[in-house]
Parts: sequence; C-alpha cells; structure tokens
Amino acid sequence: MNDIKPEHPRAESLQTRKKLADGFKKGLVTPEGLSAHGRGEAFDYILGEKTTKQAKKAIRAGAAELLLAEKPVFSVNGNVAALVPEEISELSKKTNIEIEVNLFHRSKEREEKIASHLKDHGLDKVLGTEEKHSSEISEIESNRRIVDERGIKAADTVFVPLEDGDRTKNLVSLGKKVITIDLNPMSRTAKSADITITNNIVRAMPLFIKELEKLKESSQEKLSKITKNFDNEQNLRKMLKLMLKRLENLSHR
Amino acid sequence: MNDIKPEHPRAESLQTRKKLADGFKKGLVTPEGLSAHGRGEAFDYILGEKTTKQAKKAIRAGAAELLLAEKPVFSVNGNVAALVPEEISELSKKTNIEIEVNLFHRSKEREEKIASHLKDHGLDKVLGTEEKHSSEISEIESNRRIVDERGIKAADTVFVPLEDGDRTKNLVSLGKKVITIDLNPMSRTAKSADITITNNIVRAMPLFIKELEKLKESSQEKLSKITKNFDNEQNLRKMLKLMLKRLENLSHR
Repeated sequence: MNDIKPEHPRAESLQTRKKLADGFKKGLVTPEGLSAHGRGEAFDYILGEKTTKQAKKAIRAGAAELLLAEKPVFSVNGNVAALVPEEISELSKKTNIEIEVNLFHRSKEREEKIASHLKDHGLDKVLGTEEKHSSEISEIESNRRIVDERGIKAADTVFVPLEDGDRTKNLVSLGKKVITIDLNPMSRTAKSADITITNNIVRAMPLFIKELEKLKESSQEKLSKITKNFDNEQNLRKMLKLMLKRLENLSHR
Repeated sequence: MNDIKPEHPRAESLQTRKKLADGFKKGLVTPEGLSAHGRGEAFDYILGEKTTKQAKKAIRAGAAELLLAEKPVFSVNGNVAALVPEEISELSKKTNIEIEVNLFHRSKEREEKIASHLKDHGLDKVLGTEEKHSSEISEIESNRRIVDERGIKAADTVFVPLEDGDRTKNLVSLGKKVITIDLNPMSRTAKSADITITNNIVRAMPLFIKELEKLKESSQEKLSKITKNFDNEQNLRKMLKLMLKRLENLSHR
C-alpha cells in the first residue's frame, strides 16, 4: 500500500492503517493491536471520520485537566506510539508531563523498541523501561500493573489513550484523574474515565496540543471551571445519539 | 489463543480471528487485512453476530445470479483465502465458477501462497497467478486492475467478497454483475454491488453453497425472478435500521 491515492475518499483512514501496519512490521504493534484498530475504524466510520463538537469539548477539558495536574503522565502502548509519535514528543516539550511506556501484551523487547521509536521522533526521556524503577499497582490484574515508580505510580493525572477497560477503572479507583481517547462511547474505558475524547487519536492529538497552547496562560480558576463544567456521562450520551442519528440519516438516503 | 472455550459468549468470533491470525502467520494475510477484519468484527458485533433475514435474502439472490451467469468468477484475497478455503473449493466443484486470486496489496509471493493454500484445501485450478495470462482493466486504479484474462477480465458475473469500494464500482461500470459480502451496509462496496450480503463471510459462505444446491435445478425463469425481485438498496436500508435498533438497545444497557 505504498500508493494510497490522495483522492481516494478514505485516504486518511488508509494512511492511518498503513502507519499502524508499519508499526507492526517494526515490532511496536501486536496483531491484537491491529484488530483493535480495525474496531476503532468502524466506530470512526459511523461517526463520519470527523472531530465532533463533543470531542472538541472533551479535548478542551482534558487539556485543562492536564494543566491543573501536578504530576501528569502520558501512557503509551504500541498503537499510540505507531500513530502519534511526533505529537507525544511535542506534548512532552510543552508541558511537565512524563511519558511512560506501558503495555498490555508486555515484552521487554517491545518496550524498548517503542521507547527508541519515540526517541527517534524527538522525545528525550521515556519512563517504563528500566527494571530498577519498576513498581506494581496491585489492584491491576493484567501485565499493565507493572508501572514506573516515577511515572504512573506517582501520578495524579494519567492520560491513557486506547486503553483497556479494567485498567482505566483501576486507575480511577486509585484516585487518579484519567483522560482517555476512545472511539467507542459505549466501552468500559469510555465510561470509567473522567474525561473521554471520542475521536480518532490522529485527529485528537494535534487539537489537544493546540488547546494546551491556548489555555497555558489561563488562571487555575479558569481551568478548574472548564473541568468542572465538563460532564463525561452527558458527553458520551451525546456522542451515542450522534452515532444513532448518523446511522438514521444514512438509512434514509 | 489455542484454547478458546466453546462456551465463551464470543467463541465463534474468536475462532474466526484465530483463523485470520494463522493466515497471517502463513503469509496469506497482510497487517492491513488484520485491521480490516477488526473493522468487520465491530459491524458484526453491532449486528448481533447473526445471519439476518435480509442476509438470507441476499444469499438467495446471489446464488440465483451465479447460476444464471455464463462466466462467473470468484475473486479471492488474503482474508477470504484464510477464512473460507474449504467453501471456495466446494463452490468450484458445484458450479462452473472460476477461482481467481486478486490482491489489493499485490505480491507474487503472496499470490502463490494463497493459490497453494487453496489447493491444499481441495481446489484444482486457480487463476490469477500466471504472468502469461495477466491482463489489465485500465479503469481500475489500484493493483487490483491486474486480472487474469481467462477470469475476471472475461467474466460476466464476479463474486468479490471483502472488496474495496473503487474496484466494486469499476467492475459494475464495466457491465459485470457484482455479488459481494460486506459487513458494513454503508460502504461504497455494499452500495455499488448488485447484490450485497451483509454478513460475516464465515457464516455466509456455507449458506450460499446450500442455497446453490437448492436452486440448481430451477428454471432460468425462476432464477431470473429471484434476482429481479431482489432490491439491494432496500435490503441495505433494512440492515442499517437493524444496526440502529441494536445500537439503541446496547446504549440502554
């Protein structure tokens, strides 16, 4: 697929899929990651492959939450690394956020490949790969319980895009603020997080960074107001209604 | 994933995914194919992972169309070969259909692997792999324009499951009758084909073969009546309504 024509009506989606396939060839992404991506594609398709008003609201709330955090951490898995490495590097340069590699299908080799892939894209420091700093969150059952003591373990706010439902729930129950990106508004991740951005990560991340820029000089009061006025449950309900409406319109064509 | 418990609520879907993963390991399926499958899984999930009344209607119309054809061809890509090799072989034994390997992400090696995988499952003759019979359909932009002169090029009816939208449109505009299997009732493939079976290919193919058996001795008149009475647009609209209803129910859980 070296020749995706820009005029193909779904060129963007095909380009994104290619990025992920390349990540797979490099050993960053698992076969399970490829399947999970396809599921996301279907929801994105139903949503019209566009960033909705609701997604923009969630992005704004997420950016405010991140700026309010004392110890924010961005958790990276294989798909996230393959899809938005430049944006991760930019995010780390523009805030005090730490970047941590944290995998569901854990392997030392893949961790290191992901870390060096991120460094190739301009990131200076990556947590989550050094044995001596490895720690556990016993409430989490999967391999993702192994976290960096300097990162997720100590964080007050965790930005975990494309996350597993169990893990999201556990991070929330540990009292951490959780921001996520998830295209399925019915998923357990979407429902358990404090702030869910229902959007494709490749569209959401650049907007997230822009929003951070805009809000950077805002007062704590203003930022707090933004996060307090954000109602995740309501936002997800609206996204679902939008999906239903899209399907309804499509069915009347 | 060697031990999928038959009592698992989604055992069938997991078995299918395993088939595809095995196909990937054998070099039949591309990483993009795995993503595409994940996308189909999501639509199948929304549809309840069942063969609907609409799908059964489309299967019947497709079988009638195939029996009416003078030069029918079945087009096989990596995912199709990995998922239903036995059914392809059965199909070729029960009708005058030719089987042709035709890939979006084309490689000589993969073409040959797919052909020999099909032969391992009982198929005698596979088109699409011999250079000397290779021809072009200039209207098609992707690699799939390269077709076998004895197969798709000469066909009056093409059965192309899991197809790309551009290609389906082009085959239709060349005056060929196109039958497809596509889980997304909104896709360009689904909308452009003459007969779209909105179902999982692993459930659709055995039913398709059964329907062929049933209709085999029918008169041309009867077969023509079945295809004429089939309204693809209406069928897709009904599938969409069903998806809508399912999503509505899922969202109230």
